[in-house]
Amino acid sequence: MDQQYLKTGERIDQLYSRDVKIIQSNNVFSFSLDAVLLAHFANVPQKASSTIVDLCAGNGAVGLFMASHTPSHIYEVEIQDRLADMATRSVSLNRLDDQMTILNMDLAKVTSKIKKDSVAVVTCNPPYFANYENSKKNPNKYYAIARHELETTLTAVMKATSDLLKMNGKSYFVYRPDRLDDLFREMALHRLAPKRIRFVHPKANSEANMVLVEAIKDGKPNGVRIQKPIIVYNSENEYEKEVRGMLYGRED
Amino acid sequence: MDQQYLKTGERIDQLYSRDVKIIQSNNVFSFSLDAVLLAHFANVPQKASSTIVDLCAGNGAVGLFMASHTPSHIYEVEIQDRLADMATRSVSLNRLDDQMTILNMDLAKVTSKIKKDSVAVVTCNPPYFANYENSKKNPNKYYAIARHELETTLTAVMKATSDLLKMNGKSYFVYRPDRLDDLFREMALHRLAPKRIRFVHPKANSEANMVLVEAIKDGKPNGVRIQKPIIVYNSENEYEKEVRGMLYGRED
Repeated sequence: MDQQYLKTGERIDQLYSRDVKIIQSNNVFSFSLDAVLLAHFANVPQKASSTIVDLCAGNGAVGLFMASHTPSHIYEVEIQDRLADMATRSVSLNRLDDQMTILNMDLAKVTSKIKKDSVAVVTCNPPYFANYENSKKNPNKYYAIARHELETTLTAVMKATSDLLKMNGKSYFVYRPDRLDDLFREMALHRLAPKRIRFVHPKANSEANMVLVEAIKDGKPNGVRIQKPIIVYNSENEYEKEVRGMLYGRED
Repeated sequence: MDQQYLKTGERIDQLYSRDVKIIQSNNVFSFSLDAVLLAHFANVPQKASSTIVDLCAGNGAVGLFMASHTPSHIYEVEIQDRLADMATRSVSLNRLDDQMTILNMDLAKVTSKIKKDSVAVVTCNPPYFANYENSKKNPNKYYAIARHELETTLTAVMKATSDLLKMNGKSYFVYRPDRLDDLFREMALHRLAPKRIRFVHPKANSEANMVLVEAIKDGKPNGVRIQKPIIVYNSENEYEKEVRGMLYGRED
């Protein structure tokens, strides 16, 4: 039974659109919509010989969501032992041990495990908040590390991404729009040319609270396309059709 | 009569929402929607002692559109004699000679006429296209100069903007989204922190073809808000309500 994979306080959630189960825990980490959006936004390679790396993998959600859409090998890089352990068990729970590998390590050292300039696609849902000394952080350290730049920074994420990717390899990020200037600067500093952007608005009339970015290593500058926005909820607070499809598979 | 202000091939158009007349000519220059959007997007000062500068002013459309919404003095900087002449006559046609001044000059030298660090608001609808040698340009030189970086560059625009603005002064640009990386880089290089962005999509399902940006001189980084997108046309190819308001004043 699936329960054998669980530790205390954990549960199994399912993403129906991707037919995948994922071990979660409110005390440790649960994926949220950003992981679903990122997995959906990424164009995954269709060759078994290609490699995908998900940085800041948390409990493995993004990699698990992508697995059914690609034959490529997926590495999940996560620095927190507890989250990497959950990800490892989710991989086994889904019988994906041949396709997925969890690397419980600091992403700054990832090229000691995965060859430089070898990766087709990097995805990352990085910590959103700069680690200002006076910034309010979640008292739960798992969440604090996932959300604040305590263990890594945007610069480190971009460096690892650029190091890993082969020329014209693609990277996909979900991030906060208020740090768009940081994001553009760090991409430019790390040979990543933005190619495609979607902003995510909670409702049609509200400001964006997330941004999805595709960037190409050594791609040409000045060719970014701003696609139609993703609107999450309609005026009745129900998921809009596109997001419903991402969650429940009706459009997939 | 208004006709006395016209030269051969010119006509007078009216922007109803702002109750202003503007001298146009298909052979020389006619404003388009981007000028209306920029004037509407800009938060103009409400003090008579403040100064507004519109760079790359063309036939003066953006400044003329802003005039009824502010008591501040508006300078229009335009390098092309023929366009500056049209702008000058439009100012007289609207009896705005006391509020508006046309400067027929290169914006790179604008601080010889307007004091550095003195301006509250700068607006600019710069040429959108880099001057690549092989790029196709309009055979009409007036349009070619307005659209291609023949007489000025984004760098020169950003330098003039930053030189003119006082600390925490605001700048407003309308630009092409595919050059968003250039725009972010140049803003960062010229002490302009992006604060507010709206993307303009021709239709709800299409990619953005314009972007409106507000940036503050010496503003704090990482605080940009992505507001709800502007959708120009509905599925029946009629103007959406917000744009209709900008053009005809029904929402103004």
